[in-house]
Amino acid sequence: MNTLQTRHTIRKYTAKDVDEMLLNRLLETAERTPTMGNLQLYSVVITRSKAVKEQLAPAHFNQPMVTDAPVVLTICADYRRTTVWAEHRNATPGYANFLSFMNATTDGLLYTQTLCNLAEAEGLGTCFLGTTLYMPQIIIDVLQLPRLVFPVATITMGWPAENPMQTDRLPLRAMVHQERFEDYTAERIDDFYRAKEALEVNKNFVEINRKETLAQVFTDIKYTKKDNEAMSKSLLEALHQQGFL
Amino acid sequence: MNTLQTRHTIRKYTAKDVDEMLLNRLLETAERTPTMGNLQLYSVVITRSKAVKEQLAPAHFNQPMVTDAPVVLTICADYRRTTVWAEHRNATPGYANFLSFMNATTDGLLYTQTLCNLAEAEGLGTCFLGTTLYMPQIIIDVLQLPRLVFPVATITMGWPAENPMQTDRLPLRAMVHQERFEDYTAERIDDFYRAKEALEVNKNFVEINRKETLAQVFTDIKYTKKDNEAMSKSLLEALHQQGFL
Repeated sequence: MNTLQTRHTIRKYTAKDVDEMLLNRLLETAERTPTMGNLQLYSVVITRSKAVKEQLAPAHFNQPMVTDAPVVLTICADYRRTTVWAEHRNATPGYANFLSFMNATTDGLLYTQTLCNLAEAEGLGTCFLGTTLYMPQIIIDVLQLPRLVFPVATITMGWPAENPMQTDRLPLRAMVHQERFEDYTAERIDDFYRAKEALEVNKNFVEINRKETLAQVFTDIKYTKKDNEAMSKSLLEALHQQGFL
Repeated sequence: MNTLQTRHTIRKYTAKDVDEMLLNRLLETAERTPTMGNLQLYSVVITRSKAVKEQLAPAHFNQPMVTDAPVVLTICADYRRTTVWAEHRNATPGYANFLSFMNATTDGLLYTQTLCNLAEAEGLGTCFLGTTLYMPQIIIDVLQLPRLVFPVATITMGWPAENPMQTDRLPLRAMVHQERFEDYTAERIDDFYRAKEALEVNKNFVEINRKETLAQVFTDIKYTKKDNEAMSKSLLEALHQQGFL
């Protein structure tokens, strides 16, 4: 786990493939991650074909790692396997609801992170694509995901062809609360964000985006209210279509 | 990461405390987990006090590890820190919506799993409590979670006082799909679940629950349609109350 302290997201990969046996070993070891009732409410769609990567790319704003990475993994919340199992075992499944979606999402995301930790310990580079939840319908259509299956994470994986600087993190005191939640005051916010806002890389980020503050880059450009509200609507629609709402 | 292959969930802990410096080191190293836009949309409430553990216990069906573990960690999806930061930086946050909840949940769950992987590599035992999503309002009230903060995971942690057998897992072929999702047929379901259903421990589980099939234990007793639907409703209500819906 020493790799964690020095890890960074990798977006550029060499031409070298990710060996199938290695990938299978990582996927199988990651199965040791705990899941609800040991039901393993997730599945993984492995994309190696150029054609399918190109179909998935628009769902991820055409970020180049989707088509450049040797392997793209789409991790799905999957209550379908359990449901079909129940249907073939004289049992009446009740998993077409929101709690079940959240339970399966939890299983899928915990599995994903173990898989990434294992992959990085092998020297592989990974990039987690949060875009998976932005336009899920594209992914559902391309991968032909049936009812009670929903994409919750995408990982691009390959051998690193870059060695980027580590990005900053907030101090631990910003993340941790003792016994009860201690709400954020102006003074505490200043304390938490001072170092981040003072970094040259972040000052440049504000400047090239022609904003006054770093926070404005996030609220006005990267993750705007308008986009979030529109994508919330389509996310809820997709959840409904897949049978979870 | 070798610990992963032999890991198991630990529900019984020795009286030995989890040293604060060790815990802080694990919490801080886990911060290397990637998050959306490096915003770190999570927070961790640390419970060591007996009184607070006893208040949290009912939210987890009074499972004994909540009061017995030296440390209980409640990991929250937290868009409040970013929102308060924005408000103090002349920026207009737009995170009171469902996509933002899912983004923060993702950050929180990935962080949680890295933390568990790190803790187990140190010899600590952990138990992931999926009950966190069942009665979130109790947790929200006990920990005084404000708007745009939502509990998504609970971990009990301590030094192992048991050495349980590893539980079974489905074969890798049950979890993985090549290029497109391959739907589950009766034949594939039989193949995936044959070994699980044949295990003595699972046969006993069916017998003591007076059911015909293992699947029925899950659908009729552990995770019923009625419970899932009722808890979905209160989960959605709590999301609404915390400002995410």
